[in-house]
Amino acid sequence: MSSMEKSELFKAVGKRIKELREAKGLTQVDLAGKMEGEFDTTNVSRIEAGRTNPTLYNLYRIAVALEVDLEELVRVF
Amino acid sequence: MSSMEKSELFKAVGKRIKELREAKGLTQVDLAGKMEGEFDTTNVSRIEAGRTNPTLYNLYRIAVALEVDLEELVRVF
Repeated sequence: MSSMEKSELFKAVGKRIKELREAKGLTQVDLAGKMEGEFDTTNVSRIEAGRTNPTLYNLYRIAVALEVDLEELVRVF
Repeated sequence: MSSMEKSELFKAVGKRIKELREAKGLTQVDLAGKMEGEFDTTNVSRIEAGRTNPTLYNLYRIAVALEVDLEELVRVF
């Protein structure tokens, strides 16, 4: 498995989350609202733009809100 | 998909990483040594013990070092 640049990885996972969100007909605001606990819409947009290194727990919360398994979020190559 | 407690999630992913590492016959020191860039053995042991909230990039580096796809690390339920 070739090693991906950091920014490539963040962009790929961000793009994946955006695809899954849009497939569910949700806006970023909708997704932030469905998240367990505090999660700002700007967090959603930064993660989708690949501009941040999300933690396992935040990825998990996004997966729960999107009603998909966590592994789906990181199935990017 | 039921929502898991934070500590449950970290322990489940930690346990998964330990299983994959041991299946490859690697010690924690071996794994830390195979990681791209700086990564301390104590980081490996804290992640495997579920005592930390690892970032996407650290999970990815572990997956590369274990020669498995990233989604394998988080396939925990």
